[in-house]
Amino acid sequence: MSEPSDSTDPASTPRPWPRHGSRIGAEYRIFRSRFDDLENPRTGQRMERVVLETPDWVNVIALTKDSQEIVIVKQHRFGSGGNTIEIPGGMIDPGEEPLVAAKRELREETGYVATKWTALQAVAPNPAFLDNHCHHFLAEGAALDETQELDAGEDIVVTTMTQAEAIEAVHSGAISHALVVTAFAQVFDLRRNGIERSLGR
Amino acid sequence: MSEPSDSTDPASTPRPWPRHGSRIGAEYRIFRSRFDDLENPRTGQRMERVVLETPDWVNVIALTKDSQEIVIVKQHRFGSGGNTIEIPGGMIDPGEEPLVAAKRELREETGYVATKWTALQAVAPNPAFLDNHCHHFLAEGAALDETQELDAGEDIVVTTMTQAEAIEAVHSGAISHALVVTAFAQVFDLRRNGIERSLGR
Repeated sequence: MSEPSDSTDPASTPRPWPRHGSRIGAEYRIFRSRFDDLENPRTGQRMERVVLETPDWVNVIALTKDSQEIVIVKQHRFGSGGNTIEIPGGMIDPGEEPLVAAKRELREETGYVATKWTALQAVAPNPAFLDNHCHHFLAEGAALDETQELDAGEDIVVTTMTQAEAIEAVHSGAISHALVVTAFAQVFDLRRNGIERSLGR
Repeated sequence: MSEPSDSTDPASTPRPWPRHGSRIGAEYRIFRSRFDDLENPRTGQRMERVVLETPDWVNVIALTKDSQEIVIVKQHRFGSGGNTIEIPGGMIDPGEEPLVAAKRELREETGYVATKWTALQAVAPNPAFLDNHCHHFLAEGAALDETQELDAGEDIVVTTMTQAEAIEAVHSGAISHALVVTAFAQVFDLRRNGIERSLGR
């Protein structure tokens, strides 16, 4: 046990963790494992920690031209073992610009193309063990123009939701993919009803 | 190529993917890999896909009793290889209730305890390859009561930020951990300045 390390100096930053070595682990198609030999600067203790070297991801809030509805993909997800309600997205190819990947994923997964693209703030999906970012985009003026071109590992149902339906789906948990929520939060007010009461603002 | 599969029936749902088998892969302390032998219902093609069996996680927006500031942890993260600004959180222990884990992580990582706890909506960190959820809590009336009890793998700097500072840090990317953003989005309006102009609402 120790005193909180920053009760007097809010500007202090954590110490670096010396890395004494690193070894490559298994390759998993969507990421590769790496094991770093790290030293805790607080205790001097050495430990091995896994990092998944992962391509950057991208996803897109695409609003339809006529009704400003959100283009939605529904698909079976292997991790959760169930269907999800998401926005289009995927892995960025090696050397591909995030915007190019966003346009490609929207077109391939849904057949929609859009006229106006705005980059939103990227997030780190989980800096504890992933080294990547997820890039978010807002695409406006979306219209069905092309046909789907699904990857071998995809079977995707395309639909649209109104903005109000999508916000309600986040509140109910029907939309629960964290990286959909981090995109939506930049465009829609996702606060729970009545939450302001608690906050003393 | 195929026509978008749902242009006429928004109620349709993706087909299930038959699972023909499963084998356990490597154990990584924070998750265990599993390989499922799956069949794409669209093509009949068999493929193996990795799932990381991962404990549920929890994190906490703790607001201080006196000034409604947010309790913040800064730490080196092994995945990103850099320092992050986050809220307290961690893995839920086997059999532990999410609320109990949230109180434990707040106390262990920061020394703070809180008087009023509200469960927020949980999210799926990444249903593509993770099978877990992250549970979010709002903790009010937080005050420094105990001393930190850090795990061997932790070296954490504790501080506080005003709510306005935290929202600005999300906008600037200084706070970029997706699961901090998904918690914040339920309590704070995180929309980018001026984004409403685009949305036709």
